[in-house]
Amino acid sequence: MHLTTTIRNDMEQVKSFIEENRERFLNELFDLLRIPSISTDPEYIKHINEMAAFLKNTLEEAGVDRAELFSTPGHPVILAEKIVHADLPTVLIYGHYDVQPPDPVELWETPPFEPTVRKTKNHPQGAIFARGACDDKGQLFMHIKALEGMVAMGHLPCNIKFIFEGEEEIGSPNLGTFCHKYKDKLKCDVILISDTSMLANDMPSITTGLRGLSYVEVEVTGPNRDLHSGVFGGAVGNPLQVLSKMVASLKDKHNRITIPGFYDRVVGISSEERKEMNKVPYSAEVYMSDLGVRALNGEKGYTTLERTTIRPSLDVNGIWGGYLGKGAKTVLPSKAFAKISIRLVPDQDPEEIAELFISHFKSIAPPTVKIEIKRHHGGLPAITPVDSVEYLAASRAIEFTFGKKPIPLRSGGSIPIVSLFEKVLKAKTVLMGFGLDSDDIHSPNEHFGIFNFFKGIETIPYFHAFYSKMKFSKS
Amino acid sequence: MHLTTTIRNDMEQVKSFIEENRERFLNELFDLLRIPSISTDPEYIKHINEMAAFLKNTLEEAGVDRAELFSTPGHPVILAEKIVHADLPTVLIYGHYDVQPPDPVELWETPPFEPTVRKTKNHPQGAIFARGACDDKGQLFMHIKALEGMVAMGHLPCNIKFIFEGEEEIGSPNLGTFCHKYKDKLKCDVILISDTSMLANDMPSITTGLRGLSYVEVEVTGPNRDLHSGVFGGAVGNPLQVLSKMVASLKDKHNRITIPGFYDRVVGISSEERKEMNKVPYSAEVYMSDLGVRALNGEKGYTTLERTTIRPSLDVNGIWGGYLGKGAKTVLPSKAFAKISIRLVPDQDPEEIAELFISHFKSIAPPTVKIEIKRHHGGLPAITPVDSVEYLAASRAIEFTFGKKPIPLRSGGSIPIVSLFEKVLKAKTVLMGFGLDSDDIHSPNEHFGIFNFFKGIETIPYFHAFYSKMKFSKS
Repeated sequence: MHLTTTIRNDMEQVKSFIEENRERFLNELFDLLRIPSISTDPEYIKHINEMAAFLKNTLEEAGVDRAELFSTPGHPVILAEKIVHADLPTVLIYGHYDVQPPDPVELWETPPFEPTVRKTKNHPQGAIFARGACDDKGQLFMHIKALEGMVAMGHLPCNIKFIFEGEEEIGSPNLGTFCHKYKDKLKCDVILISDTSMLANDMPSITTGLRGLSYVEVEVTGPNRDLHSGVFGGAVGNPLQVLSKMVASLKDKHNRITIPGFYDRVVGISSEERKEMNKVPYSAEVYMSDLGVRALNGEKGYTTLERTTIRPSLDVNGIWGGYLGKGAKTVLPSKAFAKISIRLVPDQDPEEIAELFISHFKSIAPPTVKIEIKRHHGGLPAITPVDSVEYLAASRAIEFTFGKKPIPLRSGGSIPIVSLFEKVLKAKTVLMGFGLDSDDIHSPNEHFGIFNFFKGIETIPYFHAFYSKMKFSKS
Repeated sequence: MHLTTTIRNDMEQVKSFIEENRERFLNELFDLLRIPSISTDPEYIKHINEMAAFLKNTLEEAGVDRAELFSTPGHPVILAEKIVHADLPTVLIYGHYDVQPPDPVELWETPPFEPTVRKTKNHPQGAIFARGACDDKGQLFMHIKALEGMVAMGHLPCNIKFIFEGEEEIGSPNLGTFCHKYKDKLKCDVILISDTSMLANDMPSITTGLRGLSYVEVEVTGPNRDLHSGVFGGAVGNPLQVLSKMVASLKDKHNRITIPGFYDRVVGISSEERKEMNKVPYSAEVYMSDLGVRALNGEKGYTTLERTTIRPSLDVNGIWGGYLGKGAKTVLPSKAFAKISIRLVPDQDPEEIAELFISHFKSIAPPTVKIEIKRHHGGLPAITPVDSVEYLAASRAIEFTFGKKPIPLRSGGSIPIVSLFEKVLKAKTVLMGFGLDSDDIHSPNEHFGIFNFFKGIETIPYFHAFYSKMKFSKS
């Protein structure tokens, strides 16, 4: 019998198991989503720990040989493994169980930590609305349930290890040290991550590149106290206006970032590659209508797709100062603040870009204010070659379950740990995500399609089977 | 006996009464300051009403013929009067019992509604720290205690009426209708207001001009929901950056306001007048050191004093949008907001300036965003001539009690009701305030000097006496 036929037969059995347990899988996911595992806010530490314990238990029930909780200076890391045979290849699955804060909470149609199913335009079969549904608890959970199915049916084609962390949304500050320390435990042939999206449910894609990230927080101080804007207005530099002007100056009229040296390390992309990349179906009308805007705006000379993938970008993520309450208050405030993130492309370095930002921002400050800049987490950009065994295994798996060859696609987001893993573990990464860009991750009403959740559980075993097969035939 | 000597003898008796009741007056003021009569926040309505009832009672105890509470569509107005004789002139005293919100509360050294006495550089005899201590509950209370002294000693030289409102900090939205309705009850010869400051305790001054005010709140909407800044960053107009750029463009490189037509109605001031005005002692070093800034910033071609009095100004009073919490969140927000106030000089009109702002701001918005603008309260600028009987009475009163002739001075602040009163009641206004610019009104740690409080109570009866005398000798 042809090997692919064997795989298909095995996997059909796994699929049947998934079908039979559909209700239970969903209920278990809901339990997972009810835990508000917000990593950035110290008040949620109890729920972070609750979440980690819950996952360890779930992994054990799914059939791993062992699952362990490791404490770190921050939130715990969970390691688990199911070793079939020492000669088989090993896939390391990464996921993160922490989530973004749900703010602004008032814009959620249903409570962020009470999962609710509703149909949407892109998810006619229904989607699960909850913080973390797509990013990344729902996607991480697919891997646990895929393992359960493979173990239950006796069709596990390779060794599987899991690493789940609770600090991705705050930049994985402790994962570097952890990976170095437990390098041996994490030893693997490939790293598989589902924390990205595809183009559409009828147009699967695989993420082949990620942007890097630098994140800074600036504090602009004018007068040493809040002043009455009548008594002092007109004579004293207003930090809100100073900050506005400084922020406005960070891009020129072509929307190029004005920080000196910013583009020095950006690797050019050939016009052929750009042409290929832009074959992906894209309609400015649909894109704008989805976002409810009348016009788009970005770096001159690049398409929307290019602006969000192969070009760096700078966004203010938050700005505040002065009186934010109801009604009017005539204050000339002492301080103004902004959170600013910069997305990076190869070969920009997050540390270097943060340095460039800081020295530029300080250099453009007028003498009426003082500037303090704090750094948040950063991460390197990363690329997965489309001719690698790792990519091809994922591509075939998706082709089998979706009935269509996936499109290789660069993503605009950042998963800083990808470059860390590749460096420490000397293995390539496959970003096989099942979300959609319209799933509102990091926003109110985040959701994850029920179709996508089950399609993910169905596809993952195929990846293991194809990867195992290709790796064997290669070696 | 010379009339001035009579006045002095009478007033010395009033002064003795004040001295004897010093402790009690302070304790009563503290009780007044403990009531958090914040007008802008509906949650404080209970305290607004408590405050109004307290004042009515205090007025009655001070010896008025009658005090009445009037409800309005907003907060209550208190009217009271003490009529000595129909032939005597009548002074209408205005004050406001509402206060600004105490935000940011964490910057107060002692709780904003628990009055505490501490010495400061400008108040070596001690100052009362509390929201409203200077603006305007402390200053309003001086008038009640001055009346009490004059009534107790039998030296009331004129008729006195009081009007106290609770909506000054939100633009007195109901006072116009009220004044028209009760025009007869409010009939008077002069309006006396203590809601301004003097240069220093050893350099008394009288406010002869007030700037007007326009206040708007802008809402900039980009995409219809918060987006992930990785997935969309670089292609979608970020409302925080759009707002920053729009705000930055409101002033040119000479710090002139760029709104077309903005300066059209500004009345020029002769170079002679400007020269006279700038004789007021001013040290940029002391000014900057007090504010903790290394440089000042304002309209080219004008001094600090001019920039804050005879020239209009524009300040952002609050700005916000995106993620304002701890840590990092990579959001490209849907909305950005700003509160913007504009100080006006004669003959600018608040309605017209608000219109000009709105149409200009909308005209400079890029097509990537939608703009909504809401108006808050406004007010006309006003001037008191230095050769008027009203001004001269105040000047002589201060000269008697401070031992120095006060300096006439324009103020940068706004008391929109001044022009309203003058129009409806056909009487001039005297702005005889006893605060200092360093008293941090509208800011954390607002305070009012104990010296100033008692000097005010001592000076007010002199005003009544001189005004009454001058008015008689004129008619």
